[in-house]
Amino acid sequence: MKMDSLEALAACFKRLPGVGQKSAMRYAYSIIDTDGDKVEAFAQALLDVKHNIKLCKVCGNYTEDSLCEICTCRDKSTICVVKAPRDIIALEKMGDYKGVYHCLHGTIDFQKGISVDDIRVKELLGRLDGVEEIIIALDADISGEMTSAYLAGLIKPLGIKVSRIAHGIPMGSEIEYTDEMTLQKALRDRKDL
Amino acid sequence: MKMDSLEALAACFKRLPGVGQKSAMRYAYSIIDTDGDKVEAFAQALLDVKHNIKLCKVCGNYTEDSLCEICTCRDKSTICVVKAPRDIIALEKMGDYKGVYHCLHGTIDFQKGISVDDIRVKELLGRLDGVEEIIIALDADISGEMTSAYLAGLIKPLGIKVSRIAHGIPMGSEIEYTDEMTLQKALRDRKDL
Repeated sequence: MKMDSLEALAACFKRLPGVGQKSAMRYAYSIIDTDGDKVEAFAQALLDVKHNIKLCKVCGNYTEDSLCEICTCRDKSTICVVKAPRDIIALEKMGDYKGVYHCLHGTIDFQKGISVDDIRVKELLGRLDGVEEIIIALDADISGEMTSAYLAGLIKPLGIKVSRIAHGIPMGSEIEYTDEMTLQKALRDRKDL
Repeated sequence: MKMDSLEALAACFKRLPGVGQKSAMRYAYSIIDTDGDKVEAFAQALLDVKHNIKLCKVCGNYTEDSLCEICTCRDKSTICVVKAPRDIIALEKMGDYKGVYHCLHGTIDFQKGISVDDIRVKELLGRLDGVEEIIIALDADISGEMTSAYLAGLIKPLGIKVSRIAHGIPMGSEIEYTDEMTLQKALRDRKDL
């Protein structure tokens, strides 16, 4: 059955992360049964996000203003370095952290051709004045490890403390079901009691 | 963090079938990183589906014309009755069926307050001229069973053959893991070898 507009819409849904052909068609069908004004609001919301959301000119977080909410009101002596704005959301949920962030928008990855110049390292170095500690909160994969080591090598010589969030066994999980890499890391980073 | 446009978009994604808060936020974030022209195409595709897709005036299937492709070219002596246009897609994938369809857009459901007048039964009765067989392909739930029985009671007295697609153990599944209702149905509908 030829229904060009339905297939065009399904193709758009399929571009969303983790959405396959079946879900995309299901979403497209659901739009037919949705009220016209809700569909118009959906279309407008897509355009609004693309038009209104930009990067905070200081930390690289998403914002609708020129400075993000965190940069305007928080303690600037501690900067937590993350890979993506999504990580800021996760860390903010915790509610404990009072400092600011710096979003690199990527980590060094030679296989994907992402070098130091492709991520926001220069911007980080430009805001170190008055900073006492840099907390690195990057993923514990090769790319994250490499970027962490690189940043520590750059920043520690400037007399600024560089730390890294701990990796280990997640709270509530069982040792039996923990993967080797995590166990290795947890054992190496053991703490005195 | 206050980002109204992002949250508004996530709320729209959350209205899609089977999409929860986390996926909705993930989809909304992905739009920020999508090219502007692709986002505009997405918004347009939503509006196009809502504007272009209507019901075939004969069978109730979705179409962009006044008659659907199936109604224009297929054998009209057999009508397969389904609940929703989605079911037509599934049956068409099989490729075996040469007749036309009739989409009821629902099945009788007293709990949900859906009566005979809320589904396209009258439209079905209005197109029985010259029809030799009605094949009922409704779900094997209470609502589907009730609607099937009701339609058979109406149509059989007119001298038209009324059949129903078989229910039983799906091809390739094991008896051990088949639910009781299906086993019961499969045993009752057993065929001579």
